[in-house]
Amino acid sequence: MTPSPWSVPTIPPLAHELTPALRARIDNKTKPPASLGRLEEIALRLGLMQGTPSPKLTQATVLVFAGDHGFAREGVSPFPPEVTPQMVLNFLAGGACINVLARMSGLPIKVIDAGVASDLPDHPDLLKLKVRAGTRNALHEDALTADEVLLCLARGAALVRDLARSGVNAILPGEMGIGNSSAAALLTSALLDLPLSECVGVGAGHDHAGVARKLEILSRVQRRRPDATTPLDALVAFGGCEIAMMAGAMLEAASLRMLVMVDGIIATSAFTVAAKLNPAVLDYALFAHTSGDGPHKLAIKALGGRPLLDLDMRLGEGTGAAMAWPIVRASLAFLDEMATFESAAVSNRN
Amino acid sequence: MTPSPWSVPTIPPLAHELTPALRARIDNKTKPPASLGRLEEIALRLGLMQGTPSPKLTQATVLVFAGDHGFAREGVSPFPPEVTPQMVLNFLAGGACINVLARMSGLPIKVIDAGVASDLPDHPDLLKLKVRAGTRNALHEDALTADEVLLCLARGAALVRDLARSGVNAILPGEMGIGNSSAAALLTSALLDLPLSECVGVGAGHDHAGVARKLEILSRVQRRRPDATTPLDALVAFGGCEIAMMAGAMLEAASLRMLVMVDGIIATSAFTVAAKLNPAVLDYALFAHTSGDGPHKLAIKALGGRPLLDLDMRLGEGTGAAMAWPIVRASLAFLDEMATFESAAVSNRN
Repeated sequence: MTPSPWSVPTIPPLAHELTPALRARIDNKTKPPASLGRLEEIALRLGLMQGTPSPKLTQATVLVFAGDHGFAREGVSPFPPEVTPQMVLNFLAGGACINVLARMSGLPIKVIDAGVASDLPDHPDLLKLKVRAGTRNALHEDALTADEVLLCLARGAALVRDLARSGVNAILPGEMGIGNSSAAALLTSALLDLPLSECVGVGAGHDHAGVARKLEILSRVQRRRPDATTPLDALVAFGGCEIAMMAGAMLEAASLRMLVMVDGIIATSAFTVAAKLNPAVLDYALFAHTSGDGPHKLAIKALGGRPLLDLDMRLGEGTGAAMAWPIVRASLAFLDEMATFESAAVSNRN
Repeated sequence: MTPSPWSVPTIPPLAHELTPALRARIDNKTKPPASLGRLEEIALRLGLMQGTPSPKLTQATVLVFAGDHGFAREGVSPFPPEVTPQMVLNFLAGGACINVLARMSGLPIKVIDAGVASDLPDHPDLLKLKVRAGTRNALHEDALTADEVLLCLARGAALVRDLARSGVNAILPGEMGIGNSSAAALLTSALLDLPLSECVGVGAGHDHAGVARKLEILSRVQRRRPDATTPLDALVAFGGCEIAMMAGAMLEAASLRMLVMVDGIIATSAFTVAAKLNPAVLDYALFAHTSGDGPHKLAIKALGGRPLLDLDMRLGEGTGAAMAWPIVRASLAFLDEMATFESAAVSNRN
């Protein structure tokens, strides 16, 4: 494996000089000022991101990053590891929840093999960017090498550059990987300096005893590598490929002024890695939802975010991002399509 | 005006015996149990409402009830009363926010003249059900007579029966009426036994002094009619036509097992009237959102509801209901379209 040329991308500042022009457009629509709340906030932000008073969503894409985790057989998940490739096939066949929600919003899906342990068939919607066939077991050794982490980040970045060239200006990254809420908990604890016990949630549906066992195992992983507190070293120590590749995709998207919709607890751990590498990625991100899993709320708060939705969802795959997508679309739709007080001959306030 | 034949409709109980069948369908989808949170709750409820393990949304419609208020010239709103008919024309021309959001979700809109003070032109999307040309000024006399209130309720019910016959099984009622957040505040205070000061919000965008003035005026209205604490008498005392007609529509919809999406603070006051007349209407309702106006949160809480969205919107028109519509659609889409563990050959949990 040759060393990757990846380095942290530069992210352009928001075009704050356009705030007055955008506010004027928003306030002249036939509605009381500020009455569209967060829709107005999103419309404004998209204008500042894109550097125009007329922001557009040209094309958005769901990206489902898949990877396996060496410690998945230690009992950190109630589901067996073979579910990762089975769910990839389910995505490709169109039968998973993210397929249903993406279809509803007209969003295409690409599935990325970032590090699934088994071989996957060829499929037009599957991008084979596998860095390794599952991470090493982080209970006993580092999950990834530094070169593997850089390769994940570089492949995520290259993927987004390709999408940008094809006209995509918004990404909805999601993930699939049995065991990856464990990697997310370890990354979140290490990078946001939160106690591990507050970062471990029910994941794919543990009962109380399951959560206790998961915490016990993850505490042992953390004790092996208490020094892994920088973003790259934490990815080396804990994995996984899909999280690292997603982080690379998020940073590259922000560098290209694309919108990044942040999904659930695992995507948020990837976003945490990205934000620790370059905090300006926050300017290009919207937190789609807060999941029903407690640690997600905590992580979003630590990042200073405010989620759009709170529907007790905790499925991953990008489903939270896809559920929030109509809100983003509505934000630009009102800006583009609503009449102004003048055009509709409506009297403005006294 | 002949007395109306309206009486409170009977509302059928939910088909609770179908809970196990619905839960089995939901839990066999390829996802961890309960991981779709409120989407699962909605899918279950729609099944219990419709009395089938395979609920469908055949057709949903936005209904914008418009009416004027006699006390609108007293300074309770920052907008002049002529904005009511101007906004009706804006709805009919497709330029208002509700038009944009409804188009986005493929929802048709009907605008109902329940009690606009001026004459309106003929238009295929305008239903002329005017009961009177604006309410009387509730500062000095009752806003409506008892017969006018019953006629509003009866016309709302008849409208919904017509919609049901044409295949509609979900309604998204919204409203337009300068001054109607004042009527809503008076109704909410009277029917939910809340202090008026906690029921008066910024409405269409009052500043601090404007809210104080609004509260002062509404306190005088309330002092004129402290005895108006039953639903029908409160409508008589405070109005308005659009709120009464909406309440009639909501009750009739529930009696026909249709879904009622409850919008903002004014629609919630109509729903409060409906719930006080027949609490079973709650079984057929979803609270679409909580608005950025504080009293709305209070009213929803008093009704025992939990809003789907919290986006700081406070525009009315049905915009909150329309924004929540994709969540309802997603709830049935996952139930209809997701693969099962068997069909996708995905291993279930250990």
